[in-house]
Amino acid sequence: MKFIAEIDVMPHKELLDPQGKTVLNNLDHLDLSGVTDVRIGRHVTMILDAASEDAARSTVETACQKLLANPIVEMYHYTLVQQ
Amino acid sequence: MKFIAEIDVMPHKELLDPQGKTVLNNLDHLDLSGVTDVRIGRHVTMILDAASEDAARSTVETACQKLLANPIVEMYHYTLVQQ
Repeated sequence: MKFIAEIDVMPHKELLDPQGKTVLNNLDHLDLSGVTDVRIGRHVTMILDAASEDAARSTVETACQKLLANPIVEMYHYTLVQQ
Repeated sequence: MKFIAEIDVMPHKELLDPQGKTVLNNLDHLDLSGVTDVRIGRHVTMILDAASEDAARSTVETACQKLLANPIVEMYHYTLVQQ
């Protein structure tokens, strides 16, 4: 079975996010008012074959914990959809 | 009204994605089989105040087109939810 995982890896809420802060400041130059917060992380689209949804979820979890996210400064969440 | 926009900025499908390719290759070292493709982009969470959903959507569109995404090599899509 083929699955698509859409994974977001974001900086922890407690941490400063200098990249997001820079974007927030620069929105003023575009005359865009009303934006109160911007946070920037990574988005990962992963396509995988697995025998079951549980197997696919296990693969995605391991990839997130060991390769995609740094748990000290980042959190991740994902959706998994069978194609 | 307060809105939250969840924006994904991804490399165009036609383009090579060296960062995704590197992750794909390294998944082998974690004994994770079955992953056939990985593409990596940015995820942006934007919190904004706007008078209406249309106004909020206009702000997010402008921010994406002028600041967050490079239309030559990237595409974007987003969801907008009123809080």
